[in-house]
Amino acid sequence: MTPRPDWLRAPAALPDGDARAGAAVHQLALTKPPGALGRLEAVAIRLASLQRLSKPVVRRPQICVFAADHGVVQEGVSAFPQEVTAQMVLNMARGGAAISVLARETGSAIELISLGTVMHIAPHPLVREAVIGPGTANFARGAAMTDAQLAQALGEGRAACERALADRRDLFIGGEMGIGNTTSASALACALLGRPAEDLVGPGTGLDGPGIGRKRDVVAQALALHRVSADDPLAALRCMGGFEIAALAGAFVACAQRRLPMLIDGFITSVAALAAVRICRGAGDWMLLGHVSAEPGHRCVVAALEAAGAEAPLLDLGMRLGEGSGAAAALPLVRLACALHAEMATFDQAGVAPKSG
Amino acid sequence: MTPRPDWLRAPAALPDGDARAGAAVHQLALTKPPGALGRLEAVAIRLASLQRLSKPVVRRPQICVFAADHGVVQEGVSAFPQEVTAQMVLNMARGGAAISVLARETGSAIELISLGTVMHIAPHPLVREAVIGPGTANFARGAAMTDAQLAQALGEGRAACERALADRRDLFIGGEMGIGNTTSASALACALLGRPAEDLVGPGTGLDGPGIGRKRDVVAQALALHRVSADDPLAALRCMGGFEIAALAGAFVACAQRRLPMLIDGFITSVAALAAVRICRGAGDWMLLGHVSAEPGHRCVVAALEAAGAEAPLLDLGMRLGEGSGAAAALPLVRLACALHAEMATFDQAGVAPKSG
Repeated sequence: MTPRPDWLRAPAALPDGDARAGAAVHQLALTKPPGALGRLEAVAIRLASLQRLSKPVVRRPQICVFAADHGVVQEGVSAFPQEVTAQMVLNMARGGAAISVLARETGSAIELISLGTVMHIAPHPLVREAVIGPGTANFARGAAMTDAQLAQALGEGRAACERALADRRDLFIGGEMGIGNTTSASALACALLGRPAEDLVGPGTGLDGPGIGRKRDVVAQALALHRVSADDPLAALRCMGGFEIAALAGAFVACAQRRLPMLIDGFITSVAALAAVRICRGAGDWMLLGHVSAEPGHRCVVAALEAAGAEAPLLDLGMRLGEGSGAAAALPLVRLACALHAEMATFDQAGVAPKSG
Repeated sequence: MTPRPDWLRAPAALPDGDARAGAAVHQLALTKPPGALGRLEAVAIRLASLQRLSKPVVRRPQICVFAADHGVVQEGVSAFPQEVTAQMVLNMARGGAAISVLARETGSAIELISLGTVMHIAPHPLVREAVIGPGTANFARGAAMTDAQLAQALGEGRAACERALADRRDLFIGGEMGIGNTTSASALACALLGRPAEDLVGPGTGLDGPGIGRKRDVVAQALALHRVSADDPLAALRCMGGFEIAALAGAFVACAQRRLPMLIDGFITSVAALAAVRICRGAGDWMLLGHVSAEPGHRCVVAALEAAGAEAPLLDLGMRLGEGSGAAAALPLVRLACALHAEMATFDQAGVAPKSG
């Protein structure tokens, strides 16, 4: 068994049933046919139960993007060269990446955490250096990381959650950057869901047919090599994870333990969320899924997260970028759900006749 | 033939093919895998072609909500009493309705236009009085309105578009309020799509099974009574429309003629949009669909609008409120699409290596 850091043993916090019930009653009093705001009603009610507020709010969202390189890129599984990881971290820091634009537009704080890249990242005030190594080992040939590296990555995620709490942040969005990380995420999803490689391997950033075939073979080979049990998420992360994926899993466990609601991004982030709910039962209650990715394997992972209590995806726009972009794109909807819940008049207040029988 | 007001004969403006092509090329240069922003890329490219701008923007959206009562309510087709139309207009004016909250949160201007309600609406500075009559006649027994009333309603829509243009608005959202108006919209959709009542009649604001059966019978009876040809949208509006639906159709035609992009709401608004594209070929190019409603008939109408050139719905959240709420909820996505298009760095600017192979 891969050793389990002590802090992972704490249970997820419980949502507040009274706040949920109160919010549900309030929704029925608002000047609209019952249920007419659809999923926006469910989101407001869920957030009320998580924030223990009759009128939930998302005023101070935090985006944390974890970046790291992947040894498995040696197997030819990505459409982009590996130096792009570091280049994109700098692009994010300079404000030119999709997640940079989305953070600005949504008024979200953004933090970039480098866990180790092959190409050196020049120091930048917006990039937090938390280097574990120059990337993982090639998991097609051996374990991706050591026990100590896994513990460090999980701990970096937890630390990001704690910084967000110290800064009074009210919603956590995790993002990732790492050339090759759909290969790692696909292998993890296969291990955690007990599915074969062909079910969950897709084009990632844009592989063609032969590229997908090669990636599928690499994942199948890794699954046969490591033979991780579906009920050992830490072993899965150690053998086939990435530093950024393990950090996201650690952050998500910590958020659930510490009552910080999460808005989850696409395929890679969702696989980290799946690891988190396997590490910490009940963590799913704290997750709202931002979107369904165009990466084909995402729907299976989404189904598993919904079964673990997560709120179903809000968007389905064919996005497949990562970085946290799909979650950030869904953030305005979460805020509109809160505003409608808090600001609409009730039938009584408005003097509107309620539904006739 | 129902007489056609002269202004309806002007054709829809043409989107700018060069602006579209330029925007598409620009998207490929941005620091992301090609296509990775999914539908957000298509929305930015579409808006570039409509606004004739290399970097489209939505800074000054306009929401116009048209309200009117429906004689067909006499047939027992709504879950709410008819005085709710006027009550809800006042609720909107006072800021308590869903569309009021969404307008505030999205920084949209909102205008409420009363075209005639059974219950008097007390004068309010935010309610524009443009009364055509105290509601339509019961279209299950005769024509809903006269030729003159139809022309007046269409003209009120056109006037709303012109006020928006005079105020330099850059996106038009139409909304509606009218107890009974899903019955009118269902009948119109059946006539314009050549489908039977059972295909398109649904619960509206919340009818139960027997209520839906009654509504379906009323629509079937009206279709048999009026025998409107699918290629005569003005006759359909006159015989079975509502003042607010005809006004929306007029507004949408005018927006397409005058180069004002539209974000279309749910079932009722989409039926008005369908009438608009039947009146004015090419109007669909100017429409982005905000969402798919939970009202079952909406998907058929959406398919027809997409076939007429409209951008497919952005949201599918089970909303079924009307008022323009589903379009307003989609507005932040349109803005994020514009921001990503305008503000992301290119591969060259960021010094990021493009896709290999």
